[in-house]
Amino acid sequence: MSVVIVGSVAYDGIETPHGRVERMLGGACTYIALASSYFTKTHIVAVVGDDFESPDEKLLTDHGIDLEGLERVPGKTFYWAGVYSDDMNDRTTLRTDLNVFAGFNPKLPESYLRAPYLILGNIQPALQRSVRQQMNGLKLAGGDTMNYWIKDYRPELLETIRDWDFLLINDAEARMLSGEYNLKRAAAKIFQMGPHTLVIKRGEYGAILFHRDWHFIVPGYLLEEVFDPTGAGDCFAGGFIGYLAEKGFDLKNGHINAKELSRAVIYGSVMGSFCCEKFGVERFRTLTREEIDARFQEFRAFTEF
Amino acid sequence: MSVVIVGSVAYDGIETPHGRVERMLGGACTYIALASSYFTKTHIVAVVGDDFESPDEKLLTDHGIDLEGLERVPGKTFYWAGVYSDDMNDRTTLRTDLNVFAGFNPKLPESYLRAPYLILGNIQPALQRSVRQQMNGLKLAGGDTMNYWIKDYRPELLETIRDWDFLLINDAEARMLSGEYNLKRAAAKIFQMGPHTLVIKRGEYGAILFHRDWHFIVPGYLLEEVFDPTGAGDCFAGGFIGYLAEKGFDLKNGHINAKELSRAVIYGSVMGSFCCEKFGVERFRTLTREEIDARFQEFRAFTEF
Repeated sequence: MSVVIVGSVAYDGIETPHGRVERMLGGACTYIALASSYFTKTHIVAVVGDDFESPDEKLLTDHGIDLEGLERVPGKTFYWAGVYSDDMNDRTTLRTDLNVFAGFNPKLPESYLRAPYLILGNIQPALQRSVRQQMNGLKLAGGDTMNYWIKDYRPELLETIRDWDFLLINDAEARMLSGEYNLKRAAAKIFQMGPHTLVIKRGEYGAILFHRDWHFIVPGYLLEEVFDPTGAGDCFAGGFIGYLAEKGFDLKNGHINAKELSRAVIYGSVMGSFCCEKFGVERFRTLTREEIDARFQEFRAFTEF
Repeated sequence: MSVVIVGSVAYDGIETPHGRVERMLGGACTYIALASSYFTKTHIVAVVGDDFESPDEKLLTDHGIDLEGLERVPGKTFYWAGVYSDDMNDRTTLRTDLNVFAGFNPKLPESYLRAPYLILGNIQPALQRSVRQQMNGLKLAGGDTMNYWIKDYRPELLETIRDWDFLLINDAEARMLSGEYNLKRAAAKIFQMGPHTLVIKRGEYGAILFHRDWHFIVPGYLLEEVFDPTGAGDCFAGGFIGYLAEKGFDLKNGHINAKELSRAVIYGSVMGSFCCEKFGVERFRTLTREEIDARFQEFRAFTEF
C-alpha cells in the first residue's frame, strides 16, 4: 500500500573525513522516499527550484517514486552545507539557504489523498498538520521534528503530534520534548501528547521503539567504514514506514502486531546503515532489495542468543 | 566450575544526582565476585587493610565467596571517591588513596591454582601476568585494563594479554589500545595481540562481543532510574565469566559455542543493570537468581523480532 512523504528535497554540500562533495542531491524527503521505494509505492510532496537537475529527478523516478506532488517554482532549490567531526558524531552547519523552501506550502495532488500511510519530514509543525488533515483513510501517520520546533514552536507542535500515531525522533529531541532525561520516562510523557508509538533514533547505537507498555531495542549495525551519515535517520524513517506499508500494517484494527513493528525498526536500521556506506544518496544507485533482505538476516544473526 | 578473581577491594565515596555516600564497600574485585557468585563458586585474590569491616566481609561470605586469597595487612584499605555528572555518563575522581593496594602483590592460595576460570581485574599488567602464569589447567582466562596501562605500560600490557583468551574493556579503551576508531577494525587489531575474544562494554548502550569472524551485539537494558553506575562494568564481567563457568564452557575444545558466549554477554548485561539500581553493592543484598533469570528473559523479549 502506498506511502506519502512530505519534506525537503535539497542540494547538500558535505565534508566528512573521507572527502568532500560541493553539491549533491539531499533533503529529508529524498532520503525517506529512496528508502521507502524499496518496499512500496512512494509518493512525495516537496518543492524544488528551476535549478533542479534531471539526473536527480531520474534517480527518483528510476526508483518508481511518484513526483506528481513535487512542485517546481522559479528560484533555487534549498541548499545546505555542513562538515562532520572526525568521529562523525558531530556536524557543523556551514550554510543554510532555504531558497524556494522558505515558501513551501505542501499541496497534495488529488491522487495522494487516500493513501493509507503518511510520513511527515521535519518541517514547520503547522504545515505538517495541514497535510495530515487533508488525508482521508489513513492507517498510519506520523513524522519527525527537531529541536528548533520543540523549543520555539511548542504549542503548534503539540497540536500537530496529537493526531499522530508515531513520532520518530532522536534521543536528544525526545529528552527536550518530554523534559525527561530517562528515555523510558520520556516515552511515557510523549504518549500523553498523542502518539502511541515512539521511535527513538540513537545514531550508531541503534534505535528503540516504545509502544505503550512494551519496547523493542536494536543496536546499530557495525560498519567497517562510515563514509557519510547524512540522511541515515531519514533512511531509517523510510525503511520503517515502507516496510509497514508493504505489509499493509494497520494500527487501527485494535491490536498491534508487535513483531511487525519490531521488524519495521530493523528495516529502518538496515536502510540507515546502507545510507552511510557512500556519500549522499550514492548507495541507492546500486542497492537492491536482495542486499536489504540479506542485511535484515545479518541483524538476526548478531542479535539472537 | 570455579572462578578466580583478582583485583581491588576498596571503600568508595560516591556522589550521584540521587545522593551521596561517604564510604561504602567497592572495588572491581568486589563487584566481579558478587556478580559471579550467583552462577558459580567464586574465589578472590585481593588485599585490604585493618580497617576492613566485618559486615563487608559478611556480605561476601554470605554470597559463598571464598576469601582465602583475601590478604589483610596493616594500614588502610584502598579508598576512591568520585562524583557523577547529571546524566551519569561522566565521572570525576575526587580522591584516590591507594593505601595498602599500593603494595598489592597477588598471592594465590594452593587451592586456587587449578581453578579453570580466571578473570583479572584492572591492575598493573605485570601482576596480572604473574597470576596467569601460576595457574594450571585454565579453560578460560582474561581480564580488564584501563587507559593508564594502555598509555604508559604498553609493552608490559601487550606481553600480558598475549596469553589471554578474552579482553573485556570499554569502547574508548579498545580504540586507544588498537589505534582504530572503528570498533570492527579495533577488534581485528586486538585479535592480533593475542585474545580471540573481545568484549566491548558501551555503558548505557550495551555491549559487543567480537570473536574472530563473527560478533554479537546487545543493547543496554533500559532502567527507569540509574542510581549509581559504579561497578556496573565489573558486574558485567562477573556475570559473563560466572555464566561461562557455570556452563563449564571450554574454549580450548576446538569449537566455540557462539550462542553460549552470546548468552554470557546477556548475563553480563543483566548483572550490570541490577548494579545500577542502588548505590554501591546495595542491590546485591536482596538480588536473587530468579530475578536474574527473569531479566535474562526480558532481554529476549525486547530484542527478538
